[in-house]
Amino acid sequence: MVSNSQTKLISSLGQKKYRDKFQLFVAEGPKVISELREEGLKLKWLFTTEPSQITLENHFLVSEAQLKKISFLKTANSATAIFEIPTLSPYLDSGLVIALDAVRDPGNLGTIIRLCDWFGVSQLICSEDTVDCYNPKVVQASMGSLARVRIHYLPLLEFLEKTNLPIYGGFMDGRNIYSETFPTDAIMILGNEANGISELISKKITHKISIPRFGKIQKTESLNVATATAIILSEFRRSTGK
Amino acid sequence: MVSNSQTKLISSLGQKKYRDKFQLFVAEGPKVISELREEGLKLKWLFTTEPSQITLENHFLVSEAQLKKISFLKTANSATAIFEIPTLSPYLDSGLVIALDAVRDPGNLGTIIRLCDWFGVSQLICSEDTVDCYNPKVVQASMGSLARVRIHYLPLLEFLEKTNLPIYGGFMDGRNIYSETFPTDAIMILGNEANGISELISKKITHKISIPRFGKIQKTESLNVATATAIILSEFRRSTGK
Repeated sequence: MVSNSQTKLISSLGQKKYRDKFQLFVAEGPKVISELREEGLKLKWLFTTEPSQITLENHFLVSEAQLKKISFLKTANSATAIFEIPTLSPYLDSGLVIALDAVRDPGNLGTIIRLCDWFGVSQLICSEDTVDCYNPKVVQASMGSLARVRIHYLPLLEFLEKTNLPIYGGFMDGRNIYSETFPTDAIMILGNEANGISELISKKITHKISIPRFGKIQKTESLNVATATAIILSEFRRSTGK
Repeated sequence: MVSNSQTKLISSLGQKKYRDKFQLFVAEGPKVISELREEGLKLKWLFTTEPSQITLENHFLVSEAQLKKISFLKTANSATAIFEIPTLSPYLDSGLVIALDAVRDPGNLGTIIRLCDWFGVSQLICSEDTVDCYNPKVVQASMGSLARVRIHYLPLLEFLEKTNLPIYGGFMDGRNIYSETFPTDAIMILGNEANGISELISKKITHKISIPRFGKIQKTESLNVATATAIILSEFRRSTGK
C-alpha cells in the first residue's frame, strides 16, 4: 500500500521546487523504470500492482486504485517509481553539445534527449527557463536516455560567454546545412517553440545555419524544434562521420 | 450562438464514421483556421468569441462557455471552424511518396504531414489502420500543411503491388542511409510506433535502409517515427538536391 505521507510526497514531485528540494523524481511504467534502474539510478520506492515484481524492502504492492492516485498519467500504468536525481559530472567543453534556449514543451525535450542519446551527444545544456528534465512528462518521453545524457541547467548567456567552442544556431535565414562542413567539437543551439532563439543569445552565435525548404509552395512556417534537432544532429554526424 | 443541432453535429465529428458520413471536420484556433481558409478549403461554419471576425452569414458569435462546449481541446481557443473535407486529386505514381503503415499517434501523423509539406512531398499514403488525418488532434498538429499535402487512405499492400516505383523502408538492420544514393521517384515506408513495418508489407520492400546510431553506448531502442521521417526526408532531399 501507499502511506499518506508517501502519497503527499509523490504528488508534490509534480512541481519542480519539490523535486529540487527532495532531489527525487517520478517515473511510470515497467519499461521506463527498468531502463532507469539498468542505468544505475537509485530507486527510493517502487509501487506496483504485480506481486512478482516485489523483491526488495522498498517495493510496495498496491491496488490499481492506489496506483491511479499517485499517477501523473491519464491512464495509470502497472508501476510507479520514485528515483533519486543523480549527481551530474561536471561539464566538459568538448564534443558536440546541444544547447536549448527556452524549450517549453515536455514532449519536445523528451524527444531531444532521446535524439542526443541516439546520436551520441552526451551533454545537453538547457537555459534555466527550459522545461525541467525531471518533469514527469519529460521522463515518460525520454525513457532510459534520460540517464545516459548529462543535462545541465545553467544561465545560457554566461555559459556561451565562457565556452571555447564554435557556436551554431538554427535560423530561417542561416546558411544551408547541406553545404556546411561541421567540426566535431561545437555547440548547437535550438530555440523556443514560438519565438526561436532569443535576441541576446543570437548575438553569441558564430555560425547561423538553416534547413532548406523544398517544393514549390513554401508556406510551412517552421519545423518543430524536435524534428529540426533530428535533422541537424543527423547532418553533424553524417558530415563528421563520428 | 450555437444551436443544439450544430452542437450535436460538431460533437459527432470527433468520430471518424461521422466525419466520413458528413464529409466535415473540425479545426480550432484562429491560426489553423486562417491557414486552411487561405488554402481554399470550404468553410461551413465559424464560431468565434471575436465580434470583429463575424463577416459572413455562416459566422456565429459565441460566448466562451459556448465555445468550450464544442471544443475538442483541453483549453478552448477563441474560434472553432467546421470545414468540408476536400476532394482528393488522383494518386500519381511519381515523385517522392511517403507511405505510413499503421501510424497511430495523432501528434506523429501531424508532424509527418508538416514534414512532407516542408520537404515538398505532395503525396502521403496511409494504410487504412493509420490514424485519420481529420482527427481533431491531427488537424491541430498539422495546421495549414493538411491542405497542401494530398493524403490517400488505401489498402497499403495492394497499393505496393501496383506501383512501379522502388520501395524503401526504414529498418534497424537496413543499409546506412548516409551511404545511399536516392532516386527522385520512390516510395518510402515508415512503420507503426511499437511494431515498425508489418511482415506482409516488409516483403514488398526493395530497399531496406537504416539511420545509424552513434556513440559508445548503443542502448536507445529506436527513434520516434516522426523524427525518423525528418531524418530520412532530409537525406532524400539532400542526396537528390530537389
